[in-house]
Amino acid sequence: MLCLRKGAWRKKADLKKNLIQRLRTATGHLAAVEGMVEGEQYCIDILKQIAAVQASLSKVAYALADSHMKHCVRDAIEAGKGEPKVDELLETLKYLKHF
Amino acid sequence: MLCLRKGAWRKKADLKKNLIQRLRTATGHLAAVEGMVEGEQYCIDILKQIAAVQASLSKVAYALADSHMKHCVRDAIEAGKGEPKVDELLETLKYLKHF
Amino acid sequence: MLCLRKGAWRKKADLKKNLIQRLRTATGHLAAVEGMVEGEQYCIDILKQIAAVQASLSKVAYALADSHMKHCVRDAIEAGKGEPKVDELLETLKYLKHF
Amino acid sequence: MLCLRKGAWRKKADLKKNLIQRLRTATGHLAAVEGMVEGEQYCIDILKQIAAVQASLSKVAYALADSHMKHCVRDAIEAGKGEPKVDELLETLKYLKHF
Repeated sequence: MLCLRKGAWRKKADLKKNLIQRLRTATGHLAAVEGMVEGEQYCIDILKQIAAVQASLSKVAYALADSHMKHCVRDAIEAGKGEPKVDELLETLKYLKHF
Repeated sequence: MLCLRKGAWRKKADLKKNLIQRLRTATGHLAAVEGMVEGEQYCIDILKQIAAVQASLSKVAYALADSHMKHCVRDAIEAGKGEPKVDELLETLKYLKHF
Repeated sequence: MLCLRKGAWRKKADLKKNLIQRLRTATGHLAAVEGMVEGEQYCIDILKQIAAVQASLSKVAYALADSHMKHCVRDAIEAGKGEPKVDELLETLKYLKHF
Repeated sequence: MLCLRKGAWRKKADLKKNLIQRLRTATGHLAAVEGMVEGEQYCIDILKQIAAVQASLSKVAYALADSHMKHCVRDAIEAGKGEPKVDELLETLKYLKHF
């Protein structure tokens, strides 16, 4: 997972814990947004909370892309097979809201 | 909530149900993304699912902004108090990833 | 143009001048980016300048959307024909990079 | 420029020509947008053209990031100095509207 390099296990455990924590918080945040709609709160306040969740998800995506480039793409490049990995990453970034 | 106009109650119930359904689906989707990190799946697959959640949230934001403009902003304009409502909406859109 | 309301002529002249100034600056900036590619400057520096032009264009789009909502959409709403104007604006915002 | 690898000169000339062509077209497009404001055309039509310019700039940024990763970042990784290059690229992508 997260295509970490050998010898990077401690770093991997930290990243994994950090991502899970952030995703759990974002999931709770999103459930609270559902409660705001249920409770018929003001649209602008709901939109602001959606924006906050989107910002959290962008940070998670950023951390994942960072780790992916530093490990998986790096390994592929060192094995002389970097181009398809770069294509794959850039293609994926197209569909992500910018970081 | 959703600042709907009088006489728009049926429409309001539909919108509310629709938004809650979408947010619930997005929340479940996000919990599944957490499971993907936990299960150490491939970063690119995780990034694609984050992109899918962001796209769902953008659609919810779009529906909210649409309803807000057609009801709350409209009412404010008809009462001669439109400008602060427009300022507030545009300011909020700045922080939302584009629709 | 800019669908300004009657009685808003001074404001209109100011907005028009301001938008033209900003677009002219952005056009010059973009021509300079072309020069950077021609001169084979560092990709990251070129990317940063493209980001700066995009930020300028977003500000122009924001000012236009603001004026559009406060005049053209407002007039349509006051004439009881607001919905198609709101649909048209939201549809357009979808294709704009967020403000 | 464009940090192309040795032995990639033909490719480099093609990329450079392609980027310059696209930037020149975008610059002309932006000058035309200024003319639309000058000619007081409809805001929504102006916003659509700004969106088109932004889309063109995103494509240029995408091509640059692609080349940068396949040459400059690759070279840095092969020389054992990949991490700062990855950090620099990701930091820059933050400020670019998404591809």
